[in-house]
Amino acid sequence: MMPTSRDIRARNRRLLLQHIVAQPAVSRPALAAATGLSHATVGTLAAELLDLGLVAESGYEESAGGRPRALLTAAGADGRLIGVDVAETYVHAELFDLSLAVRASAAAPLHPGDLTPDTVVDRIAAAVDAALARGGAEPGSVLGAGVSMPGQVDRPGSDHATIGYAANWAWQDVPLTARLAARLPYPVHLDNPLRACTAAELWFGAARGRNDAVVLNLGTGVGAGLAVGGEVYRGSTNSAGEWGHTTLVLDGRRCHCGARGCVEAYIGAAGIMRTLRERAPRSLLLSPSDQTATIAALGRAAAAGDKAANDVLAETARYLGAATADLVNLLNPEVVVLSSWVAAALGEPLLHKLRPEVRARALPRPGAAVELALSPVPSNPVSLGAAAFALEGALAPAAPKSRRGTRS
Amino acid sequence: MMPTSRDIRARNRRLLLQHIVAQPAVSRPALAAATGLSHATVGTLAAELLDLGLVAESGYEESAGGRPRALLTAAGADGRLIGVDVAETYVHAELFDLSLAVRASAAAPLHPGDLTPDTVVDRIAAAVDAALARGGAEPGSVLGAGVSMPGQVDRPGSDHATIGYAANWAWQDVPLTARLAARLPYPVHLDNPLRACTAAELWFGAARGRNDAVVLNLGTGVGAGLAVGGEVYRGSTNSAGEWGHTTLVLDGRRCHCGARGCVEAYIGAAGIMRTLRERAPRSLLLSPSDQTATIAALGRAAAAGDKAANDVLAETARYLGAATADLVNLLNPEVVVLSSWVAAALGEPLLHKLRPEVRARALPRPGAAVELALSPVPSNPVSLGAAAFALEGALAPAAPKSRRGTRS
Repeated sequence: MMPTSRDIRARNRRLLLQHIVAQPAVSRPALAAATGLSHATVGTLAAELLDLGLVAESGYEESAGGRPRALLTAAGADGRLIGVDVAETYVHAELFDLSLAVRASAAAPLHPGDLTPDTVVDRIAAAVDAALARGGAEPGSVLGAGVSMPGQVDRPGSDHATIGYAANWAWQDVPLTARLAARLPYPVHLDNPLRACTAAELWFGAARGRNDAVVLNLGTGVGAGLAVGGEVYRGSTNSAGEWGHTTLVLDGRRCHCGARGCVEAYIGAAGIMRTLRERAPRSLLLSPSDQTATIAALGRAAAAGDKAANDVLAETARYLGAATADLVNLLNPEVVVLSSWVAAALGEPLLHKLRPEVRARALPRPGAAVELALSPVPSNPVSLGAAAFALEGALAPAAPKSRRGTRS
Repeated sequence: MMPTSRDIRARNRRLLLQHIVAQPAVSRPALAAATGLSHATVGTLAAELLDLGLVAESGYEESAGGRPRALLTAAGADGRLIGVDVAETYVHAELFDLSLAVRASAAAPLHPGDLTPDTVVDRIAAAVDAALARGGAEPGSVLGAGVSMPGQVDRPGSDHATIGYAANWAWQDVPLTARLAARLPYPVHLDNPLRACTAAELWFGAARGRNDAVVLNLGTGVGAGLAVGGEVYRGSTNSAGEWGHTTLVLDGRRCHCGARGCVEAYIGAAGIMRTLRERAPRSLLLSPSDQTATIAALGRAAAAGDKAANDVLAETARYLGAATADLVNLLNPEVVVLSSWVAAALGEPLLHKLRPEVRARALPRPGAAVELALSPVPSNPVSLGAAAFALEGALAPAAPKSRRGTRS
């Protein structure tokens, strides 16, 4: 399928809103200059955004001579968005205003026994209700909720979005959006953490304003969120980004996916722990049953100059460097962003060792063009990105519900 | 940079033309149905294409009741396009009509001593002149020429397109479009074979009508031409697609790029010859100084059931399968197309062995979604794709010259 005029109109609306959200207030002529859209198109789209309640007018800018120019802002509009991050052990729900600033948060634990879709839906609804109550928001003010679920999401962004499979819970083809819709009286947008983190970087992080970007999700699992032309790239079945299951060492370490030599077997949290165990089997840094504690201890020890920790970081940087250079050579992105908890725990010491490894393996032109950065997103990027999906949903021509009427 | 309304207009024009080129003749209502564009937009864009001389009207279709519908065709327009494939040892020039059917061809050899840009420009101009003469075409009928050069092309599609580097000739930053413009009195569009092959598959091959596709260029070097949203993906500096220099075996075979374990060291023509030498050092299939002859002999022997040849093909399929599954997992394409001379020489026997290797390493969802295919393009895909770039250039709002006036 080629893009249609509807896609293009939706894209222009989002483009305009991204520019409005990015600043406290901005005039229509400034938006035309920043986007390359004509003044007439900006006028039409701005009227649509006002009508949808996604932006508000907030005063005027003085202009030399001519009449004063009205300023548009997302912060002044009264709508709210919800972003939910569902993981193996928790549900985090956050309430955002339309400038995507966090207004309130709530969490609910998920226990190993909480296996059924009904239980997970209950936990999500409870966390969302708590966040709404804490933020003093009425359900009627909510334009949409984005929910990030760990697993394969089919038909993302539609009323029929489904969990194709979720390894944690042994789910298959669960129509989660339909189930959530019975509990949350506004549009629900389902996707996964990889794509949510990518949206977070595009709207608010190191990929803002970039066309071509890669967001490395470094956690227990690893993946590469891809952005092309300033948009999250999904591939043909919303499965793109499985960088963790590309081959780094043919016939190498066994990966839990069943294959050998996958990137994840080397730079996923368990892979890093294995490198530590191989190099220093009795290391005090090792908490055998606790990935988070081990990676955090490794990061602290490396920052403090510990030799064994720095050796493990160097070996990890060698693996990560080769796998990152693969993405640089293949995709030629403007920026590669390191995101998620392993990246946060290993931080600058890892980045410092990573840069020369990437430089050594990237070809000259794409290597010179790429910037490597740690994610600057200060809050939970998954719930932020999920909320961004809800905001994009409120913009789409075929969004199932809207607070006010006009759609084109 | 986000897409602007000019980009979008150019994209719509191309979308419409791709549908017109794809069939003998088509009505405006049928185009609206196929593209999702409104009838009004199709009317406007069709008028622009007629005005640019890129399509013609050719008779009417009977419609039940209503007035007869005019049919649009690319074949009936009188413009011509040129596609040039420049490689280490030859220049191929082909003359195309606007339906991208070959009207005439010509070739000129390039000798190892033909090192300077002036010599290469001379050879290109001579081959183009010969193709025009053979096809009985006036230079004035040519809407543009696409030239594929082996190397890094900077600022592709502009008057300032430059060969950033070309390893064969030790060129650096050669403003080739400007030099060619002095010899060829129509717009010249410079790019490289990887992107030309991808355009050929998008316009006329196995990626036609697909959004997300990968074109494996399997030759002396290997690369992966990427298509996203039905367009050639270039990356931030027109360097995307260097799949040949992604890591398959960390610390593995030395690659001529200087790194170790690159995909190209295993499945480039020289890599396949190395596998053959390692398995059967005295094989009669080996022509030590002739890659083309060796690969051709290998393909023939495998097809005839030779065991050693099939072992080499199986090992090659194992390497290629892992490296292809990497692309499937990362990019989740609809189709992976095997193109270029090694793919043509090894053909079905390779594809037959490749399928289970990819299936074994691809994750279930992207593995089930992808189709593997040999390129069906019957002519030289590089010159065809180069001509498609020239056609796209004739569509672009900022194209430097046009035969008739109107641009929007």
